Amino acid sequence: MMGGDFAPLEAVKGIARYLSEGGDSTRLVLLGDESLLRPMLQEHGLDPEAMTLVHAPERIDMHEHPTKALKEKKASSIAVGFGLLATGGMDAIISAGNTGAMLVGSLFSIKSLPGIHRPTIGAYMPRENGKLGFLLDAGINADCRPEHLAQFAVLGTLFMKHVMGVEEPRVGLLNIGEEEGKGNMLAQAAYPLLKEQSGIHFIGNVEGRDVLLDKADVIVCEGFTGNIVLKMAESIHDIVVRRNVRDAYFDTFNFESYGGVPVLGVAKPVIIGHGISGAQSFMNMIRLAEKMIDKDLLGRISEAIV
Amino acid sequence: MMGGDFAPLEAVKGIARYLSEGGDSTRLVLLGDESLLRPMLQEHGLDPEAMTLVHAPERIDMHEHPTKALKEKKASSIAVGFGLLATGGMDAIISAGNTGAMLVGSLFSIKSLPGIHRPTIGAYMPRENGKLGFLLDAGINADCRPEHLAQFAVLGTLFMKHVMGVEEPRVGLLNIGEEEGKGNMLAQAAYPLLKEQSGIHFIGNVEGRDVLLDKADVIVCEGFTGNIVLKMAESIHDIVVRRNVRDAYFDTFNFESYGGVPVLGVAKPVIIGHGISGAQSFMNMIRLAEKMIDKDLLGRISEAIV
Repeated sequence: MMGGDFAPLEAVKGIARYLSEGGDSTRLVLLGDESLLRPMLQEHGLDPEAMTLVHAPERIDMHEHPTKALKEKKASSIAVGFGLLATGGMDAIISAGNTGAMLVGSLFSIKSLPGIHRPTIGAYMPRENGKLGFLLDAGINADCRPEHLAQFAVLGTLFMKHVMGVEEPRVGLLNIGEEEGKGNMLAQAAYPLLKEQSGIHFIGNVEGRDVLLDKADVIVCEGFTGNIVLKMAESIHDIVVRRNVRDAYFDTFNFESYGGVPVLGVAKPVIIGHGISGAQSFMNMIRLAEKMIDKDLLGRISEAIV
Repeated sequence: MMGGDFAPLEAVKGIARYLSEGGDSTRLVLLGDESLLRPMLQEHGLDPEAMTLVHAPERIDMHEHPTKALKEKKASSIAVGFGLLATGGMDAIISAGNTGAMLVGSLFSIKSLPGIHRPTIGAYMPRENGKLGFLLDAGINADCRPEHLAQFAVLGTLFMKHVMGVEEPRVGLLNIGEEEGKGNMLAQAAYPLLKEQSGIHFIGNVEGRDVLLDKADVIVCEGFTGNIVLKMAESIHDIVVRRNVRDAYFDTFNFESYGGVPVLGVAKPVIIGHGISGAQSFMNMIRLAEKMIDKDLLGRISEAIV
């Protein structure tokens, strides 16, 4: 509840919206400063007794060093949350707080699923037809080996298929040039692995100009290029807003509205939201966590990887 | 004259425009099918005798394999042109033809300047204030070592300073994260080299969201990421045109209008234009070649590198 630029207000509003729109099967565990949360929940017509409030009064700010902050602020909502997640007190964790701390928590408190080389985080890529592509890695794994990219393809495929409802997700390798054999050493080596990878529908290379087109549903790359693509796409939205350009497609570059992305490859559902997440994002993140559990995404990942 | 999607018409129109707007100090050497060029020049009010026409009837198509095409089509305008450039019959070469063939010509007919690790090609990045940034490498060098990036910084600085008129070009390292120590192994290793590199004004890391901002005049990266950034920026223009978005800044994403980029680090001025270059691009490319010679860019590069 304490993560994000508008904490805890937007999280509270998100919960109110989630509940008013039919959410009732999930027990919400609210981590944060109880003295702040309790009156705010009541103010928004919510019954604190219908949820589990866990007092976690410390805050990890957006710019704090993740490992250091998690170690020193044991009563922060992120530290307490990962403790509960690791010990079974919760089934999923959601936060719009310090991304680094969320990742450190994911990697060290929760650990990877067996056989996972590198947990990864993706980014949605909006398309003109309203569909979303999924680009991964979006920044955790700046240097990758070819087999990492092949595994990202499996993780992205399972996520897009079972959670996002894309029937047979097309996987593209982000590259420079269309034909096999093009690209840097990593892309050249990853291509044949992707071709042979079972459980995915590999369509070959996609280029920078294809990222925003409905060509591949899953786009794999190392996290250096992926993060630069993501940040550049985000900056398009800043430009559109700044220049007051009105266009329905460019509106979808508002990445805060998507409601968070899962850390894929770790043993529990972890969902990381944008710092400026609003009520709708929080609602969407709760639903995303529910869907990951309902569809047994992690079970499917375990089956596919081992 | 035979390169580009509208060859040779747009090249002829570009020459007409160049001459009508005061261009007279440069002897133009026109490489192409003379039987086609001569009447077309006259049609556009140009005197073929005021230029040097070199008969080069073969064409290298946009999708031909560069090395193979150059070897087999010795009477193509690109092959003949690089022959003349190498033997002193011309001082610069300009083409909107097969980019790969132009690069192969640059690297094998002309060679690199002494001390140059890797010749490179850049891409202009439009900014809202009308300035242009220069991103390099934009796709020739998919894999780079840290010292390559440091040299790209020098090449980009000299080009932006002497040809594009930016007084003290700011150099940024394309990276994920702002602080030193962030990024992939290449970026981590390149940062200290850039800090120590003489002759440049290094301002630190720039992120994907800064590529389109007026933060760094020269942005260095390996050619894999650079090419993906360029192609993605080009695709923004496609979207803007397709969706009929009217905005003065997005109009500047029309990369064809910039008129070509030089191959930096080779021993003669080589300028490569977009396949869909129009008359204005051809005029601009002639002027760019003139400016590179007038400002002795290659002499300055030699001095800076050795």
